[in-house]
Amino acid sequence: MYKELTIAQRTIMTPGPVEAHPAVLQAMTNRILGQFDPNFLAIMDEVKEMIKQPFGTKNKEAFAIDGTSRAGLEAALIALIEPGDKVLIPAYGRFAFLLGEICERAQAQVKYVEKEWTAPFAPAEVIKEIDAFQPKIVAMVHGETANGQMQPLAEIGQYCRAKDIFFVVDMVATYGGVALSVDDWCVDLAIAGTQKCLSVPSGLSLVTYNERVEAVLNARYQKELGLSKTDRNKRHIMSNYLDLSQLQRYWNTERINHHTEATSMIYALHEGLRMLLNEGLDAAYQRHLTNEGALVAGLEAMGLSIYGEKATKMPTVTPIFIPEGVDGEAVREEMLHSFGVEIASSFGDLKGKIWRIGNMGYSSRKENILHVLAALEGALLYQQAPISAGKALIAALNYYQKTT
Amino acid sequence: MYKELTIAQRTIMTPGPVEAHPAVLQAMTNRILGQFDPNFLAIMDEVKEMIKQPFGTKNKEAFAIDGTSRAGLEAALIALIEPGDKVLIPAYGRFAFLLGEICERAQAQVKYVEKEWTAPFAPAEVIKEIDAFQPKIVAMVHGETANGQMQPLAEIGQYCRAKDIFFVVDMVATYGGVALSVDDWCVDLAIAGTQKCLSVPSGLSLVTYNERVEAVLNARYQKELGLSKTDRNKRHIMSNYLDLSQLQRYWNTERINHHTEATSMIYALHEGLRMLLNEGLDAAYQRHLTNEGALVAGLEAMGLSIYGEKATKMPTVTPIFIPEGVDGEAVREEMLHSFGVEIASSFGDLKGKIWRIGNMGYSSRKENILHVLAALEGALLYQQAPISAGKALIAALNYYQKTT
Repeated sequence: MYKELTIAQRTIMTPGPVEAHPAVLQAMTNRILGQFDPNFLAIMDEVKEMIKQPFGTKNKEAFAIDGTSRAGLEAALIALIEPGDKVLIPAYGRFAFLLGEICERAQAQVKYVEKEWTAPFAPAEVIKEIDAFQPKIVAMVHGETANGQMQPLAEIGQYCRAKDIFFVVDMVATYGGVALSVDDWCVDLAIAGTQKCLSVPSGLSLVTYNERVEAVLNARYQKELGLSKTDRNKRHIMSNYLDLSQLQRYWNTERINHHTEATSMIYALHEGLRMLLNEGLDAAYQRHLTNEGALVAGLEAMGLSIYGEKATKMPTVTPIFIPEGVDGEAVREEMLHSFGVEIASSFGDLKGKIWRIGNMGYSSRKENILHVLAALEGALLYQQAPISAGKALIAALNYYQKTT
Repeated sequence: MYKELTIAQRTIMTPGPVEAHPAVLQAMTNRILGQFDPNFLAIMDEVKEMIKQPFGTKNKEAFAIDGTSRAGLEAALIALIEPGDKVLIPAYGRFAFLLGEICERAQAQVKYVEKEWTAPFAPAEVIKEIDAFQPKIVAMVHGETANGQMQPLAEIGQYCRAKDIFFVVDMVATYGGVALSVDDWCVDLAIAGTQKCLSVPSGLSLVTYNERVEAVLNARYQKELGLSKTDRNKRHIMSNYLDLSQLQRYWNTERINHHTEATSMIYALHEGLRMLLNEGLDAAYQRHLTNEGALVAGLEAMGLSIYGEKATKMPTVTPIFIPEGVDGEAVREEMLHSFGVEIASSFGDLKGKIWRIGNMGYSSRKENILHVLAALEGALLYQQAPISAGKALIAALNYYQKTT
């Protein structure tokens, strides 16, 4: 016999998934509505409008995809890519290679520009590569959770627009936690997730795109066989499930029968967006900055060093060098099992070298910052690591007092 | 300012999404756990085992995909299909063409065998077509929600196995409501959903497959670029998000970093499966049969006719001819808006000709059967349709008394 779920109490300070907002968890207890019930369609329409605000866009199109963030990334890229298309991917962290993996599988011709992960690109470097490669698409990550760095986008976007190149940006780790300006930055297609700064469980991704992308979608639209045997289109998108040209017609007034919308997750998304907009976007961004400041003050007071360029550091992720001689995984396990506090390791070359502390959405709260500092200090001291004891919490509290 | 969600009270008697089990809705209020938290991994492991039981399989592999049912269908088909592969699709309803749409997009060479939607195929008809076309894959729908018919699978599956052909079956509309025998029927790869007889919200799909399929997945596995730059494989699956060879390694002890699992939906799935197994599979199937019997007795007493062959009718969907002169959509709207009861229309040639009443999962309850009969009778009488008044509820109640 299987037993009832018992879920441990955790303070989640990873770069996602993070703690869901209590109003979001509550929303999921609502009864199911039929997917074409007018009550449900009204909720979808509100969600559409709310999604646009953290993106900083007046685009007509914005909606959710029933899949985790990488479902949105794949839907976005395969919407634009036809076999042989050239895609430029400037990579200053791990997730650029996920974009590349998706593009390669869509049979694009991909060129990577690589650099040290300690900082993003100077826009001029990317522009030089655009001139050399002449891509159809430039795909980038706005905030790299793997290393905590954030790419300035405006100049690159404006250059792409002038050259009629599509600019696709992964905003999964910044949406809701950092001010975004999709329109001003000339981002044609932007993708976000729910499990980070929105404080909604993982399971949906969010997209928005402009008329340049819509024109491509209209040219590639193929109504599916079960609904029409005549509307065939040789340029159709390679996936049915992740076909933005169909999804758009499910979310707009045409309401074609595509998938069965993930009812409870849409309830959750509605409430997550509503909580964020009620707090006020500027207030939410400031909250993330304040909590980041306190966290960094505490970590540095402990004697730990932050990885990467400070000027381009994401407020939502703080990567920390694991002190020499310390077993990073043993510390993480002590924190999880004894303190109930979760922090993250990293990927690739940074695996074993840094920890990452998230500061996202509902997890970005004063008490969580203090919990994570206390647990990290405790676990390090228990391992006899050479850190300054008794300084971190005072530094963080002083920071809060100074700024709030 | 956006207002709090207000969800109407509905009795959902469509073929999905249906009412979620209260224990399932409650489960989603649990706190988030990190995706690699041992507590969460233990839940995933239990889910894996529980998924197998309604499928009737001892397969090693069974897991959930973070997407609605058609995400599972697409993942299943693209796992096996390489460009040019021959796929035979016997179609006795609408959803066979969704399988075809997916196969065509995966560049398969698809042959459809079509027939009247009133009944499924005699196995011999399909076997004849297999001999003629010599496909690599036969893909079929077990229960067609569009027309309420159900395909006998054992003979076809055994023939495919003998000929070393892959047999892929969509069990979305029967899983949890009808006894399934994936192993005995020689189904190599089966797909189900959550929003029908499992009484879990839409948003996940379930798959199980045997060692024949696993061998293909092992031959096609490509570790993604963000995790390894060397493990390239020319035969890789065309999608990253829906790549079963990666998803398997996320769900098993290898635990590769693929997507961020949809935490709350997995909690919901755990509880939905647990409720079903606690009730007992045989008891649940009998409940669906009893409620179907009462529904049909009531409808026939009202003077309505059931569409399609009775011997092969699904217990979980009842298609009814709309009486001549009656505006089917007006009746559905009256039922929804005045009675709060939802039933479905249909697709293709059956649009405007039949209604469909679902009888699935938590919605398959005596009070719901009585509600839907009362509401349908009321809406029809209000439209002055020529039906027998005052008979339906008595017939249903007599049926219950006789059988329980």
